[in-house]
This record gives sequence, C-alpha cells and structure tokens, in this order.
Amino acid sequence: MNYSHEERSSWSPQQARNAFRNGLCRPTSGISYGYAQANLIIVPAAQAFDVLLFAQRNPKSCPLLGVLEAGQIEGPLLAGGDIRLDLPRYTVYEYGVKIAEPTEIVDYWRDDLVTFIIGCSFTFEAALLADGIRLPHIEQGVNVPMYKTSRRCNTAGTMSGPLVVSMRPIPSHQVADAVRITSRYPAVHGAPVHVGNPHQLGIEDLSQPDFGDPVTIENGHVPVFWACGVTPQAAVMETRPELAIGHAPGHMLIIDVPDNKYLIP
Amino acid sequence: MNYSHEERSSWSPQQARNAFRNGLCRPTSGISYGYAQANLIIVPAAQAFDVLLFAQRNPKSCPLLGVLEAGQIEGPLLAGGDIRLDLPRYTVYEYGVKIAEPTEIVDYWRDDLVTFIIGCSFTFEAALLADGIRLPHIEQGVNVPMYKTSRRCNTAGTMSGPLVVSMRPIPSHQVADAVRITSRYPAVHGAPVHVGNPHQLGIEDLSQPDFGDPVTIENGHVPVFWACGVTPQAAVMETRPELAIGHAPGHMLIIDVPDNKYLIP
Repeated sequence: MNYSHEERSSWSPQQARNAFRNGLCRPTSGISYGYAQANLIIVPAAQAFDVLLFAQRNPKSCPLLGVLEAGQIEGPLLAGGDIRLDLPRYTVYEYGVKIAEPTEIVDYWRDDLVTFIIGCSFTFEAALLADGIRLPHIEQGVNVPMYKTSRRCNTAGTMSGPLVVSMRPIPSHQVADAVRITSRYPAVHGAPVHVGNPHQLGIEDLSQPDFGDPVTIENGHVPVFWACGVTPQAAVMETRPELAIGHAPGHMLIIDVPDNKYLIP
Repeated sequence: MNYSHEERSSWSPQQARNAFRNGLCRPTSGISYGYAQANLIIVPAAQAFDVLLFAQRNPKSCPLLGVLEAGQIEGPLLAGGDIRLDLPRYTVYEYGVKIAEPTEIVDYWRDDLVTFIIGCSFTFEAALLADGIRLPHIEQGVNVPMYKTSRRCNTAGTMSGPLVVSMRPIPSHQVADAVRITSRYPAVHGAPVHVGNPHQLGIEDLSQPDFGDPVTIENGHVPVFWACGVTPQAAVMETRPELAIGHAPGHMLIIDVPDNKYLIP
C-alpha cells in the first residue's frame, strides 16, 4: 500500500474510500483532487436534534452536507459506501472523553446512531492551489493545524462549545484572493473567520495546535483562520453525550461530490 | 386601523408585529419595506428532528433563518416579540387537517412546541422592485399566488410532501435579471426553480392557485416560479402530526433583519 501523491490525488472518491477500508491510514488533504471532503459527527438519536440545531446555528463551522438517519450506514454522498469503514481514522468519545482512535467503528455501531456529514475546508484547497496560492501543510506533508479558540459557538439545546479553526499561512499579497476564492464556497466553511492576529482568538502559540500538526510560517506570510468542522467534536467534549464518534482530525470522509458543486455564483 | 400602503411600508418590524398583535390582519407583502419576512412551521418536539432535517434536505423551499427551541416564544429574529401573537394570521392543523385560521395561537400553545422560521420570497421583492421589475400581485393588491406542484421534496424521517411554489409573471426581457437578482438571496429561496411552463410542474390552471390569489398575466410576461415556504405545511398535511401550526399563506412573520443581511456577494 505504497501510493504516490500523484496516485492518491487521482483516485475517485470510491477508490479512496476503498483504500481506507482496506487499511490505508493517513490525512486526506490532497487525495481525490477535485472532490469534496467532509467532517463527521455521529451521535445517538436522543442527541440528534441538538446537534442538527447546533449546525443550523453555526453554519460557518458546521455547514451540513448531508445526514444519515438513525442506523443508516450509506447515502447519496457515499454511494455503495459504509460510514463505519470508509474513513482512514475515527475518534470515539464516551461522556466527552476520547476513548479510542480506531480505523473502523463497527464495534461501536448502534441502530440509533445518526450521522452528520459536514463540509471541510480541504474542499476549497484545490481552488486556492489553482489560483497559485501555496499551502504549507501540503508542501510540508503534514496535517493542517487546528486550534480551539476563545470564541464561543451559538448554543443549541445541550450543545455548546468553542469555535475550532484551521490555519493556513498566506502571503500578504494573496490574502485578499484567498478570502475572495473561499467566500464562494460557503458549504465548506466559506470565507475566513479571522485574518492575522491569533491572540484575538485566544491562540497563544501557533506552534502548538490542538489538532493536526504545526506548520512553518515563512516571513511575510499572514496566518489566516477558517472555521473548522472539528468544532462539533469540541462541543461533544463539553456536552458529554454518552457516545459520540467523529473523524480523526484531518482524516476526512471523501464524498462523491465534485468541489465545484459547492461553488456559488 | 386604516393605514395607507406608504405607512405600512415604512413600519419597523416591531411596529408591524405590534399592529398584527393589536388586530390588523392582511397579507404582509409590501409591509416594512427593506426587512425580511418569514414563514412559520411549529410542531411538537417529537416531530422537530424530522422537520429540521426536512429543511436541511430541501434548502430551496425551506431555508431556515432561525429556530425557537421547545416552549420559546421569542428570539433574536423577533426581539421583544411573541410568536403566538405577532403574525396577522395562522393556520392550525390537527393530524394534517386544517382546523382553524386564527389571528393568534395562545389557545393552542404548549411547552413542547418548536418553532421553525423559514425565509420568504417577499424578502427579495424589494430588490426586484428596485431594479424596475414590476410585481403584479403588489400592483393588483392581492396575495401572491402559490401552487402545489407534482415535484416531490426530499423525504426526511416521517416528513414528505410536494414542492410548493410562488409565481410572479415577469416580462420576457427581465426574466434573466429576476434570476440574477434572486439568486443572490439563497436564504429566502434564491433563484427560481422553474421558468415558463406550469404544466411541467403539474400546474393545470394558473388562475386556480392552491394558496393566495390569482394574478392577471399580461401579454409577453412569463410565469416564473420560486420555491415557497408553504412547502412544510403541505408536508404536514401529508405527514399528519397530531398538531402543527403555520402562518396563513402570505401572512408572514416580519423579522428584525434587513433584507441585505441575506445578500451574498
């Protein structure tokens, strides 16, 4: 299972999902170039209304692309797929505490589990690259850095928590382009929530991300922050439902939808 | 309570809601010019997940602007308001059958009722008028005509039903402008779902709308159809929850949000 970057980038979403199902485990940035990627949050039906309402009230961090109803393991976003097997890695929480990071969740599955599929900023990276905007985490071969912020999400029922952001350093002269391009993809987090001052988000040290890996910030590059689909997992850690399952940060669901399907005029 | 069109159009949203609370009862098109209007669907908590998911899966007809959690009667969209009093007229359904069209719903209120506030195409009418596009239902002083179509919505749990559309006749040379302008307001139904051929939507006779009033279609005008926030009420009629309450068609909630807040770039 040694695939080159070029091979992985040209996989169809189904090929990528099958590779993960068969044991490949790595961050998904750069895989199935041109297809959308998605965050996952899975909760029991008893918590599902609150999670769905949390997404509705926090559309920048939780833009919903689809929902699998209780017990469903596939749907139109992952034709022929199995949500319990088709991600490279998952995170399992019991009462808000991470208890495992398995590569499949068959052993945790229950018929009352509802799956929320949430847009991911990896989706607009192809558009940024196509415009000549370099992405350090891809160049450095690491997972994008993600940070819990001091900004609170809008509460929904029992669900509350901090906004989580991903960070990409952008050359000053391309910041406006990065804003312009990503604002056209609201379904995958859209425009940045913050440009340039991590302290105002309560981030003390960019080299210590809460999820993912640190990246080197070159001189003249500005840290730009996008809302991140790990946000519902941070809310789960605060809200402590009996069970919740997410993707492992950076290890996304690759869906059958081309990026440009989420492009607005 | 005899107000001129000019008076009504210059009311603040709160003034309009107070006028309805104090007994004014009429369609809201043209009232509080420049502020958004909204559809209502209220269901018991037991049905709330299905309704919320129905909205997520049918964003053209059910673009959610806000949700009042179980028992809540006000929220940020209607500061100081009371959702049970502040619309000119409501429609009450028991097991899918319309049982009343009251001007307040205090007698039907329960602590487990969840309120969904859904964007309304009246919101983009100001932008159409500002571009010189005439709107016959306003000129003719009637409610916009609405039709059940043969097109099915995406099902969500127990909720299923037909797409409902509103219709505005547009001069041929302005159809493209009407599409362009309304596509920038996805939160209030956005671009039309259909232009020009009512039979393809299963509409036999434009002079017999299912809701609202017929309008005269002048020579050279094309019927243009937008998804309509009465759609969840049509689903309620099919799905038959024990109780559901909507606005009366055309008699909307006027919210504290300016139209241009829903304008995308």
